[in-house]
Amino acid sequence: MAEITEALLVVSAHAGDFVWRSGGAIALAAERGQRAKVVCLSYGERGESAKAWLAGKKLEEIKALRRQEAEAAAAALGAEIEFFDAGDYPLLESPELVDRLVHVYREVQPTVVLTHTLADPYNGDHPAAARMAIQARILAQAIGYEAAGDPLGAPPLFSFEPHQSEQCDFKPDVLLDITPVFTRKEAAMRCLPAQQHMWDYYTDLAKRRGVQLERNAGPNLGLGKDTRAEAFQRHYPQTTKELS
Amino acid sequence: MAEITEALLVVSAHAGDFVWRSGGAIALAAERGQRAKVVCLSYGERGESAKAWLAGKKLEEIKALRRQEAEAAAAALGAEIEFFDAGDYPLLESPELVDRLVHVYREVQPTVVLTHTLADPYNGDHPAAARMAIQARILAQAIGYEAAGDPLGAPPLFSFEPHQSEQCDFKPDVLLDITPVFTRKEAAMRCLPAQQHMWDYYTDLAKRRGVQLERNAGPNLGLGKDTRAEAFQRHYPQTTKELS
Amino acid sequence: MAEITEALLVVSAHAGDFVWRSGGAIALAAERGQRAKVVCLSYGERGESAKAWLAGKKLEEIKALRRQEAEAAAAALGAEIEFFDAGDYPLLESPELVDRLVHVYREVQPTVVLTHTLADPYNGDHPAAARMAIQARILAQAIGYEAAGDPLGAPPLFSFEPHQSEQCDFKPDVLLDITPVFTRKEAAMRCLPAQQHMWDYYTDLAKRRGVQLERNAGPNLGLGKDTRAEAFQRHYPQTTKELS
Amino acid sequence: MAEITEALLVVSAHAGDFVWRSGGAIALAAERGQRAKVVCLSYGERGESAKAWLAGKKLEEIKALRRQEAEAAAAALGAEIEFFDAGDYPLLESPELVDRLVHVYREVQPTVVLTHTLADPYNGDHPAAARMAIQARILAQAIGYEAAGDPLGAPPLFSFEPHQSEQCDFKPDVLLDITPVFTRKEAAMRCLPAQQHMWDYYTDLAKRRGVQLERNAGPNLGLGKDTRAEAFQRHYPQTTKELS
Amino acid sequence: MAEITEALLVVSAHAGDFVWRSGGAIALAAERGQRAKVVCLSYGERGESAKAWLAGKKLEEIKALRRQEAEAAAAALGAEIEFFDAGDYPLLESPELVDRLVHVYREVQPTVVLTHTLADPYNGDHPAAARMAIQARILAQAIGYEAAGDPLGAPPLFSFEPHQSEQCDFKPDVLLDITPVFTRKEAAMRCLPAQQHMWDYYTDLAKRRGVQLERNAGPNLGLGKDTRAEAFQRHYPQTTKELS
Amino acid sequence: MAEITEALLVVSAHAGDFVWRSGGAIALAAERGQRAKVVCLSYGERGESAKAWLAGKKLEEIKALRRQEAEAAAAALGAEIEFFDAGDYPLLESPELVDRLVHVYREVQPTVVLTHTLADPYNGDHPAAARMAIQARILAQAIGYEAAGDPLGAPPLFSFEPHQSEQCDFKPDVLLDITPVFTRKEAAMRCLPAQQHMWDYYTDLAKRRGVQLERNAGPNLGLGKDTRAEAFQRHYPQTTKELS
Repeated sequence: MAEITEALLVVSAHAGDFVWRSGGAIALAAERGQRAKVVCLSYGERGESAKAWLAGKKLEEIKALRRQEAEAAAAALGAEIEFFDAGDYPLLESPELVDRLVHVYREVQPTVVLTHTLADPYNGDHPAAARMAIQARILAQAIGYEAAGDPLGAPPLFSFEPHQSEQCDFKPDVLLDITPVFTRKEAAMRCLPAQQHMWDYYTDLAKRRGVQLERNAGPNLGLGKDTRAEAFQRHYPQTTKELS
Repeated sequence: MAEITEALLVVSAHAGDFVWRSGGAIALAAERGQRAKVVCLSYGERGESAKAWLAGKKLEEIKALRRQEAEAAAAALGAEIEFFDAGDYPLLESPELVDRLVHVYREVQPTVVLTHTLADPYNGDHPAAARMAIQARILAQAIGYEAAGDPLGAPPLFSFEPHQSEQCDFKPDVLLDITPVFTRKEAAMRCLPAQQHMWDYYTDLAKRRGVQLERNAGPNLGLGKDTRAEAFQRHYPQTTKELS
Repeated sequence: MAEITEALLVVSAHAGDFVWRSGGAIALAAERGQRAKVVCLSYGERGESAKAWLAGKKLEEIKALRRQEAEAAAAALGAEIEFFDAGDYPLLESPELVDRLVHVYREVQPTVVLTHTLADPYNGDHPAAARMAIQARILAQAIGYEAAGDPLGAPPLFSFEPHQSEQCDFKPDVLLDITPVFTRKEAAMRCLPAQQHMWDYYTDLAKRRGVQLERNAGPNLGLGKDTRAEAFQRHYPQTTKELS
Repeated sequence: MAEITEALLVVSAHAGDFVWRSGGAIALAAERGQRAKVVCLSYGERGESAKAWLAGKKLEEIKALRRQEAEAAAAALGAEIEFFDAGDYPLLESPELVDRLVHVYREVQPTVVLTHTLADPYNGDHPAAARMAIQARILAQAIGYEAAGDPLGAPPLFSFEPHQSEQCDFKPDVLLDITPVFTRKEAAMRCLPAQQHMWDYYTDLAKRRGVQLERNAGPNLGLGKDTRAEAFQRHYPQTTKELS
Repeated sequence: MAEITEALLVVSAHAGDFVWRSGGAIALAAERGQRAKVVCLSYGERGESAKAWLAGKKLEEIKALRRQEAEAAAAALGAEIEFFDAGDYPLLESPELVDRLVHVYREVQPTVVLTHTLADPYNGDHPAAARMAIQARILAQAIGYEAAGDPLGAPPLFSFEPHQSEQCDFKPDVLLDITPVFTRKEAAMRCLPAQQHMWDYYTDLAKRRGVQLERNAGPNLGLGKDTRAEAFQRHYPQTTKELS
Repeated sequence: MAEITEALLVVSAHAGDFVWRSGGAIALAAERGQRAKVVCLSYGERGESAKAWLAGKKLEEIKALRRQEAEAAAAALGAEIEFFDAGDYPLLESPELVDRLVHVYREVQPTVVLTHTLADPYNGDHPAAARMAIQARILAQAIGYEAAGDPLGAPPLFSFEPHQSEQCDFKPDVLLDITPVFTRKEAAMRCLPAQQHMWDYYTDLAKRRGVQLERNAGPNLGLGKDTRAEAFQRHYPQTTKELS
């Protein structure tokens, strides 16, 4: 399948999600020369901008601020970014939003898709985004669906890690080594000063997932290797020519 | 990790299981020049030899017969085979059997392990074999466990497909393309005339899993490609440097 | 309860689903002299008609073609069929569609209901159809719901088998012997040439479920009996006067 | 299958379990003229005889007392009873106990089997009994297993209701109408004065399951019909010639 | 946190649910001097008023009747009550209803929230109410959401017990002792003569949950203590300064 | 229940588990003046002492070393400690070990019990310890079980956090604030130099669980409060007189 151009599509409910949860995966793809595209369904202007609201900012100011930050973070990771400005808290599902996503799928022709988990008792926007990303992937595969571009293949779709994994029924089945690009993820995180407390949190998480990657990849001798990792869960079975 | 020699270990409760459930995976490994080793914990002499009992054969005759058949099937797949002769119906778990398996792990140093599912309401021997295979893998990793050879790394361990997948809580997350070696799997199945009714059954299953592989790998246009596949379920998260 | 007239209602997302997944159950009911009614919520014109789109056909042509085929298949099984023409890919849930289904329940007074599974990661229309079929069954039971006809009793509702059972959390708890009517199911399948690759697939599946039925019904001696079966999963507990 | 003689086998961890949890099912079978046989693996002498211990009774006295009570209860239900006297708290699993059960299966040739749930966080003996009952059923089916009598068929096996259903992952899929024999169940319960507080408890439970049976069997008009019911969960798929 | 005023909010799909399922919890809160507020999303006029429909009453009459009964029951428990009159069978989810609930959260500032389970195969209105109650709780926490009042804290949210617990995936993790207020719950139940058959049912259930509470709280000596209890399931982890 | 003396019992498979997974809970209990007792079933001499084996130490040396470290850690937390020296890798379940635990339960009369999860695909000793701790708790409750001391009440039993929570089906339902005693936990961790890489790991984890505690306890404004927490999962329903 040498002629297929690899491309990564990330469907993110809010402006920061793609950074915390999949910044490493995005940077890895970009470093391999793949196209990486992020769709932010909203700016997270209501639900994830507490500092700005406390500071007395207005809605449009907050949206502009979040947009700038997200654009800077995407650039740091090497990704394109598009905003649907569909509103958050709540992000309301609609056939129109799904249709816009179908058009993105048809245009980008992603070979890997990342999005939220289908369950999240702390945030209704995350599952809404995931449901729409999955539904759009299905529709984009149908030759009978009216949208420009070829029907989509069957790219694997992964959930990235939610904030409280166990409460979201998130059981990782893929641990991705992001050590080579971790400085890029750090740079991207620093583009989001509104959520500064997250920097340490997601650095610690990358270490913890790194230890687990080591444990799952080889003998457990406690010889720390400073691996950094992100966790993902497959939505569909892997297809392969070799078990490994 | 170029210096690692790849090797496949299959832990099978009875003499036929490895053929029906993972003959394709074994043949693929062998064709790639890997060492492939099968451990049969029993011959399936009591529980899976109904025809021979109906024909009035004796226990030792049946064991010898099953052994011959399994040896022929392993040869057809390109695998070594070792018999523990631990008895079946029931296959009784014991620290001694687990210890024998640890020694095999230490000697073979497998990079991939295949065994049964942990649940099977139709067959108590299958989960017993799986529990011992998993426990032995853990013990073989411990430098403090007394057995010749280096401590084991962390080879991925997969459940192969049981007879009634849904009743055994088997949810495939890997579909393996065995098309290039399917004739070898067929040849191996034909070495087991005692279970002749299984030939068609597992040929049909390979087709069904093949259609699913196509569906999960690309657009679903109904243009049959005659793919043959086997289904597996990971016991541990995959570790990787690239999502795909 | 001798005075109750038995009737079967099948709620199918697309024009072919009722044939592949429950053709045997429908033919059995018809042969026993029961009324059997199929509601097709859509023709499957966008999502399950790839061949026609590839051949350059137009939407209305495809719908007409699928309708003819489905009518022929229903006739072969001995069932009535009604089309809601609600569109597919996506099939959008709405109170209006549910209300139409309530009217059907009130008119048909089914004693058995068949529909899709509530989960299907490959097809959003299937769960949408199932949710509406279940919701309509609940509403039809309420004396206060405005629709002609008596309030519905409590007919058992079964999910029929999806294409990739394990991925849809389908765990069969009923295996139905369709051997006596399998030729009628074959005839119905042949009414659907647009999905010709499915004929063999569902014939193989019927054999596989048949072997499992034999295994669950009696001693496992490997004496193939060529049973053909369909698998179903109950949505509600069975009520009975005798365990069996 | 007219020539098959129906028979019911109940595998009970302690002397009282079969009464509380399946007395109605036993009485129904007996009234239909079937053989009904109860195997009590222990007398419940340590774990379910608090009153007797508080009264200062000795172990052998308590066992004798519990035996008498259980015999009386079995008689009231119309069942045979056999005691394995294997000890309780803990009831220890062993190949010998499983083998004794295999012999019972081969002799009784049950067409229905009842036992405990596989999970019970309040009582380790209950799952131990269930595991042995299931394992023995599997072994009794194997023609190669040495025990007098013909190989067993494939009788359905049901879990009866534990004391705290949700904590034991008990999800009923069969509700059995025991109204016609409820006075027999009451009589049997009264044979167990050591657990007098259970009489009301299991009478209330029979009412509650009765209301649920009505709800699942027909329109929910709140016209109490005083149905009494017991709940069960299938361990294997039902096989049938007709959906109902 | 001494300055926090404790308050209980109950989100009930129909006019009777809060009484049967959480009358004890409400009365306990009221007796401790807390504010207790019930929101009834509908009167249950279509789905839970069979007697009135059978008696030929009209829709508006039935709604008025149910309202009177629910007001009397709330008064008996010591609670305020508000009716959204959003219609039942079906209760349709909408952003407007969720927004009304957000306003209630912001005004009441509940420290405990009670609502339905997220699954109920017998009643689509119950999960719809639960989804809206959970979504509104999330939105009310966001400082950016426009509604009068301070952002909500993080009150624990519990599902109360559905009619058929196991079918609704209800696994209680909290058993609440309502013995001291059980007469108040009885009085409230008697305010609902339209569902008279429920009085005994929920009295029996309170006894059954009471026995389980005793079993989970202390030694199981069968010395009945006539405890009455209600069962609940947490939606979020408990936070605490002490394990107990 | 003022007269009950509170006591904490921890059943730990290896010498370090109780420190990493529940050091905070132990220190909190000790600071409140409760008795806290740790039972180490083994020293972790084979499976969790890789450094010592690599350094060429002998089995008895390693056991002595691990014992000293664990004693120092227990002292730092304010707990008693007892070693069963039952061996690890594998820790073999036996009625004798369970009986020894019953005697501890009867003597300590714990009001809270902590142990491992029932699932752990990386470590067979952890579930073995949990199964024995749970079984012993059940047996200790039975008045008929022969062991000195009064029958046990029904203390809540919690699983503490395993190394890879999601793979062990660990879903926290209690988040314990250990901020006031975190320096004691740090001191205890420093008593275990053989697993030095764990210090940072479990400090990071305490921060992560602390953030989650804040999120679950109150508004999520990102105003870091440096809370430290441990996560636990209940094995039995909580019993309470007040929802909170």
